[in-house]
Amino acid sequence: MAGKFFSMRNLKFLLYEVFDCPALAGYDYYSQHNRKAVDMVLAAAAKMAGDLLWPILKEMDEHPPRLENGRVKVHADVKKILKEAGAGGWIGAHFPAELDGEQMPLMVGSAARFIFAAANYSGAVYADLCAGAAHLIAAFGSPRLIATYVPRMLSGSWQGTMALTEPQAGSSLSDIVTSAAPMGEGVYRIKGQKIFISAGDHDGAENVVHLMLAKIEGAPPGARGISLFVVPKKRPDASGYLADNDVTVTAVYHKLGYRGAPITELSMGEKNDCIGYLVGEPHQGLKYMFQMMNEARLGVGLGATAIASAAYYAALEYAKARTQGRKIHEKDPNLPQIPIIEHADVKRMLLFQRAVVEGSLALLLQCSLYADLEKITQGEEKERNHLLLELLTPVAKTYPSEMGILSVSAGLQCFGGYGYCDDFPLEQYYRDARIHPIHEGTTAIQGMDLLGRKVVMKDGQAFLLFAGEVDRVIQAAQDEPMLAPLSEKLREAMTRLQNVTLHLGRKARTEGVEPFLADAVLYLELFGIIVIAWQWLLQAQTARLALAKNCSQGEMNFYQGKLFACRYFFGYELPKTLGLAERLTAADNLTVEMPVNCFGD
Amino acid sequence: MAGKFFSMRNLKFLLYEVFDCPALAGYDYYSQHNRKAVDMVLAAAAKMAGDLLWPILKEMDEHPPRLENGRVKVHADVKKILKEAGAGGWIGAHFPAELDGEQMPLMVGSAARFIFAAANYSGAVYADLCAGAAHLIAAFGSPRLIATYVPRMLSGSWQGTMALTEPQAGSSLSDIVTSAAPMGEGVYRIKGQKIFISAGDHDGAENVVHLMLAKIEGAPPGARGISLFVVPKKRPDASGYLADNDVTVTAVYHKLGYRGAPITELSMGEKNDCIGYLVGEPHQGLKYMFQMMNEARLGVGLGATAIASAAYYAALEYAKARTQGRKIHEKDPNLPQIPIIEHADVKRMLLFQRAVVEGSLALLLQCSLYADLEKITQGEEKERNHLLLELLTPVAKTYPSEMGILSVSAGLQCFGGYGYCDDFPLEQYYRDARIHPIHEGTTAIQGMDLLGRKVVMKDGQAFLLFAGEVDRVIQAAQDEPMLAPLSEKLREAMTRLQNVTLHLGRKARTEGVEPFLADAVLYLELFGIIVIAWQWLLQAQTARLALAKNCSQGEMNFYQGKLFACRYFFGYELPKTLGLAERLTAADNLTVEMPVNCFGD
Repeated sequence: MAGKFFSMRNLKFLLYEVFDCPALAGYDYYSQHNRKAVDMVLAAAAKMAGDLLWPILKEMDEHPPRLENGRVKVHADVKKILKEAGAGGWIGAHFPAELDGEQMPLMVGSAARFIFAAANYSGAVYADLCAGAAHLIAAFGSPRLIATYVPRMLSGSWQGTMALTEPQAGSSLSDIVTSAAPMGEGVYRIKGQKIFISAGDHDGAENVVHLMLAKIEGAPPGARGISLFVVPKKRPDASGYLADNDVTVTAVYHKLGYRGAPITELSMGEKNDCIGYLVGEPHQGLKYMFQMMNEARLGVGLGATAIASAAYYAALEYAKARTQGRKIHEKDPNLPQIPIIEHADVKRMLLFQRAVVEGSLALLLQCSLYADLEKITQGEEKERNHLLLELLTPVAKTYPSEMGILSVSAGLQCFGGYGYCDDFPLEQYYRDARIHPIHEGTTAIQGMDLLGRKVVMKDGQAFLLFAGEVDRVIQAAQDEPMLAPLSEKLREAMTRLQNVTLHLGRKARTEGVEPFLADAVLYLELFGIIVIAWQWLLQAQTARLALAKNCSQGEMNFYQGKLFACRYFFGYELPKTLGLAERLTAADNLTVEMPVNCFGD
Repeated sequence: MAGKFFSMRNLKFLLYEVFDCPALAGYDYYSQHNRKAVDMVLAAAAKMAGDLLWPILKEMDEHPPRLENGRVKVHADVKKILKEAGAGGWIGAHFPAELDGEQMPLMVGSAARFIFAAANYSGAVYADLCAGAAHLIAAFGSPRLIATYVPRMLSGSWQGTMALTEPQAGSSLSDIVTSAAPMGEGVYRIKGQKIFISAGDHDGAENVVHLMLAKIEGAPPGARGISLFVVPKKRPDASGYLADNDVTVTAVYHKLGYRGAPITELSMGEKNDCIGYLVGEPHQGLKYMFQMMNEARLGVGLGATAIASAAYYAALEYAKARTQGRKIHEKDPNLPQIPIIEHADVKRMLLFQRAVVEGSLALLLQCSLYADLEKITQGEEKERNHLLLELLTPVAKTYPSEMGILSVSAGLQCFGGYGYCDDFPLEQYYRDARIHPIHEGTTAIQGMDLLGRKVVMKDGQAFLLFAGEVDRVIQAAQDEPMLAPLSEKLREAMTRLQNVTLHLGRKARTEGVEPFLADAVLYLELFGIIVIAWQWLLQAQTARLALAKNCSQGEMNFYQGKLFACRYFFGYELPKTLGLAERLTAADNLTVEMPVNCFGD
C-alpha cells in the first residue's frame, strides 16, 4: 500500500504562503498559535495519522462493525484512537481554555482533520463527532450539562453523535416525530426512532451522547417545534454511576464503503425509560443544530478532499512506477516501455485529481479562516466573515463531495484493471467517497440552501461580499503577464454567474419558487467551479511571487506544478461553466412541467 | 428488491418503431426473423432473465468465485445458465445455419443480451464470451478447429475466453511475451502468463477454450508479430478424451464489483506441456482478435447500459413510493408528505438516467443494425455500413460506460442514505458499473482509436458518412414545429464538432501527433454527446409521428415521456459540448508540456 496520503508541503503552502495563518496569533484568542506551534501541530497530526489511523485503513474496511447482543463491536483500535484524540487535545482543539481547550484556529484544526481523514476517513470520524456534539452542548447547554458531558467527550471517553434522521424524516427534518414528554427541570421522557446515526453505538467508548432532535408534546408543527436534547446511552447520576438509558441499537447498516464507522438505527424509550435533557430553549433545536451541521458540512468537505488526496498520491506513485507503452510518436517496439505518467492522458487525469484536491483544500481553509475571523472580530467585520462563511458552506461541502468522487474515479482509472481490485486501496476509496454527497444534507439540499437561502439573504449581501473577494484576486493577478489571461477568464466567469443569478432572480419573481429552484444543483455546480477557480488563481499568484525569488529546484518544481494545476483548472474545468450557464438561463421548466406518469414504462 | 430491470415497451419502440428491425427479414439470411419471431425471442429472453439470472444477482455478488485446489468455484447456477444459453440458441444466435446457428440479426441478439445483462451482468457474461470466442474460431480457424470447438462452445458445454492481457502488456498489447514454439501442423507449445482473463476458469463448464494471443518464436517485434491460438484447458484427442493441457489458474482477483464472474490469472506451460492451435495465418492474430474485441466493445456498451437500466427502474420505483417533504411553495407542515418523484430535482436525476439508458441503447441498436447490414450487403453499401460501425464502436463502448457510472450514481442518490446500503441493489450496481471504462480497452484507448484512427481513416470518409446520417435526422425533424429548435441545436453542435475536428487536424499537421491526441478522451466525450443527441432526435421524431395518430393514454404517456427525455438531453446534456469545444480548441498543450517532476510533493 502506498505510504503517502497527503502533502505536508502543500498544507504549509496554503497555511503559510497563501493564507498567512500565523497572523492569527496576533489576536489574543489565538496567541499561542504562532508558526512554530502550528508546525508542531501539523507534525503531531501527521504522526498520529501515520501511526494509528493509516495502518488499519484496510482492516477497518474488511471487518466492519457488527451488532452483537445489542452492542456494536468496532475495530479494537477505535478506543485507542479516541483516547489519543482526547489526550492530544484534538477533540478540544477549538474549545476555549476555560473548558480545557486549545483555542486553536479552525484553519489549523481543519488541516489536522484533513490529515487524519486522508489516513483513514472512518477512523477519523469518531473524534470529529465528539468535538461537534460537545461544541453544541458548550454553546447552548446549561452549566450542569456542560460540566457533566463536555469534559468526558473532549477526553474521548464518551462518544458524541448527532441524531436527526428518522425513517419518515431524512431530508425533510421538519417531519420528525420523536417525542419528548416534560418531567420538569429540563428533563424529558424520550420516545422514538432514529436512523443513519453515525457512531450511534460502539464498544470503543464508555458512553454515547446523542445530540438529538425531538418534539416536545404540544409543540408547533414543522421545524418550529423542534427541540434539542442530550440523550445519553447511559445516564450518570450525581455519584457518577451510569444507568442504562433505554436507547436500543436495532440495526447497524451494511454499507458500500465508510465501513470502519458504524451507522446505526436507534430506538429510544422501548421500556419507557429514556431520559433526555433539553439543550437551551424549547423549539429552538433546529437553529442550534445548524451550528453542528455547518461544522459537519465543512467536515464532510474535508473528508471528501482527504479521500481524494489519498487516492491522488496512490495514483501518482503508481503512474510513476508502472511502465506501459511508448510515446505516441514512437513506433519502435524494441524500445523499453515508459512510465505511464509520461502519457498526456495520464497527466490529464493526475492534474484533474490535483486540481480537485488542492482547490478544495484551499477553499476549506479559506472557509476556516472566515470562521476564525468571525470568532474574534466584531461588528461589520464579524458580519462580513459570517456571511462569507454562510454563503460558501454549501459549496465547501458539495464541490469536494461531488468532484471528489470523480477525482477518486480518475485515480482508479490510472491503475487500469488493478484499480478495480483490492490489491490497491483505490477500490476502497471509490466506495468510501460515495457517502459524501448524501450525508449532512444531500447535494440537492445544499443547492437549495445556496440559491434559495444564502444567495438571496440580506438582499444578496453575501453574494456581493463574495464577488468582492474574487475581484480582489482578479485585480492582483491581472498585472502579472502569465496570470492576466486567467484573471480575465475568471472575470468573464463571474459575469456569467452574475447574469445567471439575475436571470434566476427574475424567474423567482415572475414564475415562482419552484422553477427558480428546479436547477439549484446545477447552480451550485456552476458556483462551485468559479469558487475553486478563484482559489486556484490565488494559489497561482502566491506561486508566482515565490518563483520571483530565489528557490531550490525542488521548490521550483512545486511552484511550477501549482501553475500547471491552475492552468489545468482554467483550461479544462472552468469552461464547464459555459454549458451550465446555457442550461440555467434556458426558458423551459422541463423538470417542473413533466407529469410523473410520463416516466413509467 | 425491485422487480423491473428493463422496459420491454422501450425495446419494442426502438426495434420496431425507430429502426424497423423486421425489415431485415426481407433479406434471405435473416428471413426467419419477422416481427412475430422477434417478439418471441424477446419474450424468451425476458423469461430466462427473470427466471434464471435476476434471482441470483445478489447471491453471486455475495459469494464471489474462489480458487480451491487449482479450480475456480462459481455459483452453482452458472452451469445451468450456460446450458440454457446453449439450448435456447442464445450463444449461436448470430451463427449461420450450417453451424447450427440461428442467423439472428445482431439487433435482436443485442436486445436479448441487454435483457440478460440488465438482470445480472456477471451472470450474462459467460455466454457472451462463448459466443465471441466461438465466432473467432468460426471466422478464421481451420475446419478441424471449427468442428472440434465451435459446437461445444455453442452448446454452452465449453467456456470461451479472450486471453490477451499480460502483466507487462495491458493497454500496450504489442508488448506481450507469451511464446509459441512450433511443433508442426499448426500445433505449438505455449509458455507464458495471462492476467485479467474473464471466465478464465470455472466449474460451470466442462472445458475452457482460450482464444489467446502469443508470439511465435522469431516473430517480428511488436504488434506485427502477434498470432492467435486456441489454447484449451483440456485438450481433446481424436477419441474425445480430454487431457490436461497445463494451463494453471494462479489467482482469482478480488474485485470491487462484477463479482459473479471470475477474473483469473493464468500460467501456461509450467510443465512444458501446454499446446496451442494456431488460428489462421501466423502474425495476423491482432487483426483477427479485433473481430472479437469489437464485438466485445459493443457488448461492454450493452452491459453498461443494462446496469444503468436496472438502476434506473429501481430508482424510479423508489421515487414513486418514497414520500419526503412537500412542494417547495407549500409551507404547511400538516399536509402529508409527497412522493419524492414530485420534486423537480428528483425528476432531473431520473430524466438524466433515462436519457443515458435509452440514448445509449438506441445507439447500440443502431450499431447493431449497421453490423447486420454490413453482413448482407455488398460493395459500396457494405463499405458504408462497415465504416459507420467502425467509427461508432469506440463511442458505443465508451458513452454508456462513462455515463452509465454517473447514471447509476444518480440512481443511488435518489435513495438517499438507503442507496449507500445493501438493502437495495444500487450499491452493487454502482460497484458493477465501474468496470466498463476499464475492460476491452480503456476510455483512453477508445479516445485514441476514435480520433487517431477512425476519424482520419480513408480521408475522413467515416466521419462524412456519420455527418450525413445526422443530417438526415436533422432534415426530417426541422419541419416539425416542436422539434425544429432541437434540430437547429443539433446542427450547431455538429458544426462545433466539425470545427473541433478541423482544428485538431491542423494541430496534427503543425504540432505533431502527441498534441493532436492529448485530449482524445475529451474529443470522444464531445463526439459521444452529439451521437446520443442524434439518437434522441431520432426517437423524438418517431414519438411525434406516433402521437399524431390515435393512441391510448398509456401510449401517449410513453411517447410524451420520450419527448421530455429528448428535451432533457438537449437542454441539459448537449450544452456540455460548449465547454468541451472550448477546451479542445485551446492553444496550449498543457498535458504534453508539463514535466513529470512538477507533480511530486
